[in-house]
Amino acid sequence: MPARYDTVSFLSDYGLDDEFVGVVKAVIRGIAPHVTVIDISHGVPPHDVRAGGLALARSVQYLPPGVVLAVVDPGVGSDRRAVAVETAEAVFIGPDNGLLASAVALAGGARRAVALTNDKYQLPAPGPTFAGRDVFAPAAAHLCAGVELEELGEPLDPSTLLPGTLPLSRLEEGRVVGEVLWVDRFGNVQLNVDPDELAAMGERISLRYGDQVRTAVRVHNYAELGPGQIGLVVDSYGLVAVCLDKRSAADELHLHPPAEVTLEPAAER
Amino acid sequence: MPARYDTVSFLSDYGLDDEFVGVVKAVIRGIAPHVTVIDISHGVPPHDVRAGGLALARSVQYLPPGVVLAVVDPGVGSDRRAVAVETAEAVFIGPDNGLLASAVALAGGARRAVALTNDKYQLPAPGPTFAGRDVFAPAAAHLCAGVELEELGEPLDPSTLLPGTLPLSRLEEGRVVGEVLWVDRFGNVQLNVDPDELAAMGERISLRYGDQVRTAVRVHNYAELGPGQIGLVVDSYGLVAVCLDKRSAADELHLHPPAEVTLEPAAER
Amino acid sequence: MPARYDTVSFLSDYGLDDEFVGVVKAVIRGIAPHVTVIDISHGVPPHDVRAGGLALARSVQYLPPGVVLAVVDPGVGSDRRAVAVETAEAVFIGPDNGLLASAVALAGGARRAVALTNDKYQLPAPGPTFAGRDVFAPAAAHLCAGVELEELGEPLDPSTLLPGTLPLSRLEEGRVVGEVLWVDRFGNVQLNVDPDELAAMGERISLRYGDQVRTAVRVHNYAELGPGQIGLVVDSYGLVAVCLDKRSAADELHLHPPAEVTLEPAAER
Repeated sequence: MPARYDTVSFLSDYGLDDEFVGVVKAVIRGIAPHVTVIDISHGVPPHDVRAGGLALARSVQYLPPGVVLAVVDPGVGSDRRAVAVETAEAVFIGPDNGLLASAVALAGGARRAVALTNDKYQLPAPGPTFAGRDVFAPAAAHLCAGVELEELGEPLDPSTLLPGTLPLSRLEEGRVVGEVLWVDRFGNVQLNVDPDELAAMGERISLRYGDQVRTAVRVHNYAELGPGQIGLVVDSYGLVAVCLDKRSAADELHLHPPAEVTLEPAAER
Repeated sequence: MPARYDTVSFLSDYGLDDEFVGVVKAVIRGIAPHVTVIDISHGVPPHDVRAGGLALARSVQYLPPGVVLAVVDPGVGSDRRAVAVETAEAVFIGPDNGLLASAVALAGGARRAVALTNDKYQLPAPGPTFAGRDVFAPAAAHLCAGVELEELGEPLDPSTLLPGTLPLSRLEEGRVVGEVLWVDRFGNVQLNVDPDELAAMGERISLRYGDQVRTAVRVHNYAELGPGQIGLVVDSYGLVAVCLDKRSAADELHLHPPAEVTLEPAAER
Repeated sequence: MPARYDTVSFLSDYGLDDEFVGVVKAVIRGIAPHVTVIDISHGVPPHDVRAGGLALARSVQYLPPGVVLAVVDPGVGSDRRAVAVETAEAVFIGPDNGLLASAVALAGGARRAVALTNDKYQLPAPGPTFAGRDVFAPAAAHLCAGVELEELGEPLDPSTLLPGTLPLSRLEEGRVVGEVLWVDRFGNVQLNVDPDELAAMGERISLRYGDQVRTAVRVHNYAELGPGQIGLVVDSYGLVAVCLDKRSAADELHLHPPAEVTLEPAAER
């Protein structure tokens, strides 16, 4: 059986304090020793399917061809389906709870999918709560080793896969109403707002959220900002982000997912 | 000298904020570039030999053949021994402080052991406090590269290795008295209690610990639990764990290692 | 084009909660699939160029030959240069902000350097804030794959690279005045003091910092210390470190970078 893939890109909410991630990798290596695992991140907040799906969507265009293993799975052991979804260049493996949906769409959409029901390609499980080890990792590894997708379980109609929730911004009388998608380690606050939507607004933009109103300036990079200034940059994913220079905008402005933010031209000074 | 192993599974209390783990891997790669290192976990609480030994014991049956490197070593630089312990399919390397004992036992027991006394297979150490880099990593890498176990140092009688401390639960007049072994990232509270010990207790079970008394229900998975319910599941290692649905049982019930917990049938409602 | 290097050693302040590190590795694998990435650490405090440079300097002598990728880059997107600096056995890639300087010096000094200006070896960037993904990782990967240093961009005079700041201790009338360089996970407090500087001081040494005066004893390892004792050890990098046995000296003594510490012989008891 010729090996088909040599990379598993792996995202989870397992954290790195427990041995979950290590055991998943050990299982993969036991079945498919030729595989390299790339850790996308394991710092997704526990059970946060939305945050995990967004991180996967931000990453997917950069991942090498192969298997993408994603596990944020609050319904583990229940009747939610475990699935493998084939796109043009990858197979996505994880729970069918919306986690994979946005990334699959960005990867060109599902061509085929199966439910992971064939226990020949699973580990015997002392209990049902670690599907990453017992169901998902073996499926990923066997696929890499050359097992055909359809051997992993029963085919399913890709249109029945649970959709993701990528919130859309909306335009309202010269305003843009968006939402905080993500706060990164540096405290930059990514909005679901395209820079084009702000094209007509000029350099100074008013931000309203909760009971706050702040004025931000559009900049090309953090270092352009003075100590008291709030910035709007085009971030590395091409979306608008609220930022400060070398400090956390999220902490200082109290802006966290999924806060709603309204952007409009700032009043003249 | 033909390479003997191609995997080092690595557990420590080094954390990932400092460069300790990276330097250990760099040393291994310098000596044995063909080796893949699998990080079991480096989030063992500092100096917590018991927690490290339990994490290693939970992982060991899933590890691929090769070398297992484990470093939780509060006595580093003192006269505690540094050892390599050979089992049927692996060689365990670490301090002789009980850390390796349970995993070695689960791997079938020690067949041979040596003290890592041969400084030909060590790095020159500017100071004695980083044995992971200077003693353990070189030993692991040289073993992988084909060096014989007995070249690493003086043979020692495996029966003189420090034992681990896997606490046992006990039965008392229809009650089971157990202990919290582990709290995972999700707040699930693993007890040293086998589900068979609860077989005669019915579905509703009373938990006593400290001055608390709570009632838990036996469930198959987290999602079966209502918002106000405490669950007992068979966890992924086949032990009983106290859980809530999508929340941390450890935080909300104030249950942490090594608390003693008594389980008995709940009174009729 | 023959592959030139097979290892990238990677340090950053990206943390592991976001997908930054994973995406950088995915980009490297897409360009140079034969490469193994060794994570030195990604726990450098955000924007802390000094701490990152010190971690790199502590690691550099242990790194295998190849590319060293280091990203702590508060000026990302501004006019700070992105550079590749060749030493005898490695090429260092990162921002020209002092981060690389001490490590390059310890590796024997720069032989050649270029600014990473050739966008043929970069990814198209939706925004300018993730140079790790768009500029540094592709440069590292293409070098490994066999691209020549001079193809990556315009040559620059290594003497124009920003220097690092390795603070030096000073001797004053029988005293040594040093500085806290680093606090590790275990709370050990590394000073920029060579043990030789304390040679004439005897076993009991007075530490003064802020408004504190404490007495420490020189020991070979942590376990020699009694519960109430403060120790001075020669740490694993050959520098003097303040420590306690199994507890955090940094937390209990309130000693953190870059505090100034004066050491002198303790008064007779």
